[in-house]
Amino acid sequence: MAENYERNMILGNGKKYNVIGTRPIRHDGADKVTGRAKYGADFTASGVLHGKVLRSPHAHAIIKSIDTSAAEALAGVKAVITSNDLEPVESGTIVDLGESTVDLKYMRSNILARDKVVYKGHAIAAVAAQSTHEAEDALDLIKVTYDILPPLITAPDSMKDGATIIHEDLRMSEGGKEVEKNTNISNHVLHEIGDIEKGFAQADLVIEREFNTATVHQGYIEPHPVTALWNNDDRLTIWTSTQGAFTVRAALSACLGKPESDIKVVPMEIGGGFGGKIPIYLEPLAALLSKKTGHHVKMVMTRSEVFECTGPTPGSYIKIKMGATKTGKITAAHAFLAYEAGGFPGGMIEAGCKCVFAPYNIPNVVVEGYDVVVNKPKTAAYRAPGSTNAAFASEAVSNEIADELDIDPIEFRLINSAAEGTRRADGPRAMKNHPHYNTPIESPNQGRGIAVGYWFNAGLESSAAISVNRNGTVNLVEGSTDIGGSRTSLSMQAAEVLGIAAEDINPSVGDTDSIGYTAVTGGSRVTFATGFAVYRAAQDVKRQAIERASIIWDVDSSSLSMDNGIIRSNNQPKLSMSFKDMALQMNDTGGPIMGRGSFDGKGEGGSFAGNLVDVELDPETGKTTILRFTVFQDAGKAIHPSYVEGQMQGGSAQGIGWGLNEEYFMDPSGRMANSTFLDYRIPTSLDLPLIDTVIVEVPNPNHPLGVRGVGEANIVPPPAALADAIYNAAGIRLRDLPMNPIAIMNATWENGK
Amino acid sequence: MAENYERNMILGNGKKYNVIGTRPIRHDGADKVTGRAKYGADFTASGVLHGKVLRSPHAHAIIKSIDTSAAEALAGVKAVITSNDLEPVESGTIVDLGESTVDLKYMRSNILARDKVVYKGHAIAAVAAQSTHEAEDALDLIKVTYDILPPLITAPDSMKDGATIIHEDLRMSEGGKEVEKNTNISNHVLHEIGDIEKGFAQADLVIEREFNTATVHQGYIEPHPVTALWNNDDRLTIWTSTQGAFTVRAALSACLGKPESDIKVVPMEIGGGFGGKIPIYLEPLAALLSKKTGHHVKMVMTRSEVFECTGPTPGSYIKIKMGATKTGKITAAHAFLAYEAGGFPGGMIEAGCKCVFAPYNIPNVVVEGYDVVVNKPKTAAYRAPGSTNAAFASEAVSNEIADELDIDPIEFRLINSAAEGTRRADGPRAMKNHPHYNTPIESPNQGRGIAVGYWFNAGLESSAAISVNRNGTVNLVEGSTDIGGSRTSLSMQAAEVLGIAAEDINPSVGDTDSIGYTAVTGGSRVTFATGFAVYRAAQDVKRQAIERASIIWDVDSSSLSMDNGIIRSNNQPKLSMSFKDMALQMNDTGGPIMGRGSFDGKGEGGSFAGNLVDVELDPETGKTTILRFTVFQDAGKAIHPSYVEGQMQGGSAQGIGWGLNEEYFMDPSGRMANSTFLDYRIPTSLDLPLIDTVIVEVPNPNHPLGVRGVGEANIVPPPAALADAIYNAAGIRLRDLPMNPIAIMNATWENGK
Repeated sequence: MAENYERNMILGNGKKYNVIGTRPIRHDGADKVTGRAKYGADFTASGVLHGKVLRSPHAHAIIKSIDTSAAEALAGVKAVITSNDLEPVESGTIVDLGESTVDLKYMRSNILARDKVVYKGHAIAAVAAQSTHEAEDALDLIKVTYDILPPLITAPDSMKDGATIIHEDLRMSEGGKEVEKNTNISNHVLHEIGDIEKGFAQADLVIEREFNTATVHQGYIEPHPVTALWNNDDRLTIWTSTQGAFTVRAALSACLGKPESDIKVVPMEIGGGFGGKIPIYLEPLAALLSKKTGHHVKMVMTRSEVFECTGPTPGSYIKIKMGATKTGKITAAHAFLAYEAGGFPGGMIEAGCKCVFAPYNIPNVVVEGYDVVVNKPKTAAYRAPGSTNAAFASEAVSNEIADELDIDPIEFRLINSAAEGTRRADGPRAMKNHPHYNTPIESPNQGRGIAVGYWFNAGLESSAAISVNRNGTVNLVEGSTDIGGSRTSLSMQAAEVLGIAAEDINPSVGDTDSIGYTAVTGGSRVTFATGFAVYRAAQDVKRQAIERASIIWDVDSSSLSMDNGIIRSNNQPKLSMSFKDMALQMNDTGGPIMGRGSFDGKGEGGSFAGNLVDVELDPETGKTTILRFTVFQDAGKAIHPSYVEGQMQGGSAQGIGWGLNEEYFMDPSGRMANSTFLDYRIPTSLDLPLIDTVIVEVPNPNHPLGVRGVGEANIVPPPAALADAIYNAAGIRLRDLPMNPIAIMNATWENGK
Repeated sequence: MAENYERNMILGNGKKYNVIGTRPIRHDGADKVTGRAKYGADFTASGVLHGKVLRSPHAHAIIKSIDTSAAEALAGVKAVITSNDLEPVESGTIVDLGESTVDLKYMRSNILARDKVVYKGHAIAAVAAQSTHEAEDALDLIKVTYDILPPLITAPDSMKDGATIIHEDLRMSEGGKEVEKNTNISNHVLHEIGDIEKGFAQADLVIEREFNTATVHQGYIEPHPVTALWNNDDRLTIWTSTQGAFTVRAALSACLGKPESDIKVVPMEIGGGFGGKIPIYLEPLAALLSKKTGHHVKMVMTRSEVFECTGPTPGSYIKIKMGATKTGKITAAHAFLAYEAGGFPGGMIEAGCKCVFAPYNIPNVVVEGYDVVVNKPKTAAYRAPGSTNAAFASEAVSNEIADELDIDPIEFRLINSAAEGTRRADGPRAMKNHPHYNTPIESPNQGRGIAVGYWFNAGLESSAAISVNRNGTVNLVEGSTDIGGSRTSLSMQAAEVLGIAAEDINPSVGDTDSIGYTAVTGGSRVTFATGFAVYRAAQDVKRQAIERASIIWDVDSSSLSMDNGIIRSNNQPKLSMSFKDMALQMNDTGGPIMGRGSFDGKGEGGSFAGNLVDVELDPETGKTTILRFTVFQDAGKAIHPSYVEGQMQGGSAQGIGWGLNEEYFMDPSGRMANSTFLDYRIPTSLDLPLIDTVIVEVPNPNHPLGVRGVGEANIVPPPAALADAIYNAAGIRLRDLPMNPIAIMNATWENGK
């Protein structure tokens, strides 16, 4: 995309940069393309034992008994653990994991089921043996007896009066307070603005629609791997693939009742996460098995385990009611969102409620959200978690209103965005002016769709440290797992401050023993928040570089400044020295220079995204072919435009899969029938056009280089945009995801009736 | 020794410490005693190749030809390298390695011989193959033809007129200037004080004696191991056992002509070094073999390779002449020291010259020293390098003078030390007052010896970084390889500043990518210099902790102070918060806290050591049994007294081995005849008594906690003290090392004649 860079960068903050905005080669490129990068499953150690997990075949059942004696007696088996190896605790024990809180009982129960299993694949026991095969054989020897219960698969079923209660001790939270017993609803969110009744009364047109979205998985390529060593001095080391080493440390600390400072988490390279590699699953099992055996214990999930036993994004039921005047002004909007929490409380409902109407400026709003426990794996974050479901529904109603009122759909967004000249309007305006929108569609069975979406992004804490080499290059250590090129986007920020090249920065990702606290790689926060910490570390280096020059020149440091890598005297023009020359002399003028920076996460900027998509429907098969796809997103300042574009393309691809193909296909007993990548179809390169990108640069005033964060909003609009395109191609409005060929043929036939 | 602590600590600096001076368990203890610590040879990687080195069978020869074709053709062999793989360079190209300079030609020639071999075992070629056995087989297929030259084994032989010139391009350095061609002397040192002739004229007694000391090896238990990966992006990673990762990086950079910043050195745990693991040997070979093959290449020396091909300490010839008045005042002293450099210039002569008379205050002195190239492996540092040889000679003459004048030998030291109340006198006074000195020796064949010695210690640069955990513990990263417990001695300094426990510090040794420049673990500098960097990093944390408290309390930070881990307001007595309470709130009051500190190495304090040793000689066999041994040493402030005592005991044990047993036994062709631990006898626990220790604490005013450094001076006096004891037991004065049973029987028979 490099050649389109100028055309595809809109606005910008007008500052001149040397490094920011260029496209250097990524620092970890060679390791990644040669296969030399070390992922979790590459870790090995002498005497390592292999762990496997016994998982429930039932979606909902009481555990009557577990007998591990035969497994323990099997040759090669070194240890078996069950929930008896985790301290029991009452529900209501809330633990602070730094960036979130968790009910310790449910957390531990998800790691190892205690009294009942609440989803198919729920872990019951784990075995460590000399080989994977011996461990698998041992699983077959563990005898578990169950009382099978009927499963609850969807949120509406689970919310029904008289539904089986999955957790008898569950208390519904409403505004942070417990309000009800005997429910499967763990959280009830309510946002109200203005007077909703009055708003609808002002409308000329009111449309109310219902939507369902399927459970989908992040689909990261690398299954969860972990190795644990519980050492003789009681210190625990974990090598794992995670979005946040410090988060794993905090979660393990809570789960095992062990101080954080006795745990070291080494983040290996990560083969994708998208939110799904924030929670812990195998880590406590490997730790406990290591404690029992005294050996390293390694565990790697199968693909089916990833689908069935880790956190997908919630399936959801959503009802949207919107009213607008004839001129297209939305007067009122009501959203009812019921999101599946999975087997344990704590879903994505709050984020969904925050995002559902975020692109619009609506005077009268009610948003009510429900987090509902069902018999599926406990959900986890998935790229802008909760927002895609919500936008699929709200954008569909927006498009239907615009269509009914015969208003251009982008114009409809502009009418309802905030005032002219604000950021909320920049995206739709860029879409409206783009050649894609101005190219007519003329062939039959083709249609264009549009949709927009929002993600608020996260801040959270980060840390960074920089050491200067004698040749004026620097080593950077930071705490954020690099998923999408952040080694480079962070290095570039340091390079900009120090006036050296991106290639002069040698970045590495620290483990929890070697760098300050850093929250997860998630919430589109790394380039923003860890970038801010890196910026501060570089400023700390810069300050010291100026001091050293003042020692070398024997002048007051306040008379010096450093720009573009040159330290200069403000009043003696002859005094000038490059950062590199200073570095050569640093060891003798006070010692090696190190800088440190941290950031408390305040000031993140949200991100809007929009899609234009042209599709063609095959009326014989229901197959949707995407002809053209353009994604617009505001990035703040785009540090490394290629990676911004990569995020936009990746999120679009995932949104397209979510829209057209992906779903947990559940049988009535609550078993997933398609837990392989053959049957759970994510888009391949053959399924997608080249996704064109337009970066809208509206600098974040709270970041010294204007960064917002760009990893997530791009997944939000695609399902809604595709639904709109399908309607425009075939006249059918699909309100359930996925919009696969079966759905399209069913709707076509229904439409034809 | 803990119960003797009070008795065995002399002086001290009177300050009250919470952590300094206590004896916490070492942080790496569990890993070390369970065998879990990862040493260089434990490193492995998939697809690793194994390297072996072809070494010269001759001590001195011209290389006429090298034919590697048959070796290259052998199945399993992946690469063969010779000196052709290293860029040739003229002598006189001096490269700065940070803490020393080196002639690049000689450095590269020592790594791989180019035109001639200058010692038996000199590396000629290296092979990488799929297995060690295939690599060894390939060595046999490399055809080398030689013109054999007569070897020069001792410094006096090499200095003779007409001696074969080992390096025709060698230029003698004198005061830093080149002064002579055609010589085997690479360095001539000359120190002069006062008027030596006048001094000897004032003496009532003048004694002149000649001494020889054998080549001895540091005898570290772990042979040199290395693994190298020359990655596709041209970055080189080295996993090795070294005293200084940054020093290896600098040396490799020079040797390979590759920027330092393209090299990452990962220091594995180290199984002893004592100065011998500062130079590089296998590292460039493994790097070049990896470059050629694209694989990890691993190489591990055999014990014979360690003896024959790495740097032992110089053998030496020394002549001492001293004159004193009847009252015991030394009026003049002259030293002539000729130290073997080994096959390439750059030995320990300068240090020997600095130390030879250091314990004494002598008005008229001449010290002339010579660094002499011989056909032995290039020497390396060995614990107070150069000082032990020198003290063996000068202390023997001191003792002989005291004996002749009938002055108590300790009184003789006090007479000639600086004025009363200075540090130079504290040690001898402690020795004189010790019960050991006041217990009479009455049995036949028993005798007591005394000697003192000096080491100036090193400063050099260090770096450290500290990250605070939310539970108020901290992670410390520092750049010094931990040989003798420095993780703990450094942690204790951080703990003292922060007012937390040593166990609340979690130390780790960084690689060259993850911490600022830090010079070698050597020169007794780590607890001093890296300790100073850690102290500064802790102060940086402390400053920030106070700032955070000021934010939490909304008061001015200048009104706050922190002592013993409690932050207090100086004017509002109710405001008080522990460091741990602050840590719990830090992430929300500005973000995680990291501190950094570095140090430029200025202000190290030297260290004196003294020995009292009682021996019994077996007149039938010449065996020396050590009955009692007490070592006195000034440590500055002893941070962890057990480790100070451990250094004192370890240095004493090595000094005893050097004195009584150890030597390179060379045959006339220049081959070492005893290159195994069976034949090269280092003392075992059965050979030694429990060595009693007396720490003399005279704080170093240039270190905030008073540290001097204690790793080396203790090896200096033992050979001299043993010679004195043997004289007092049997009436024979031995002036050649080692003083083994053969030497003792020979002297006894000669004496008896």
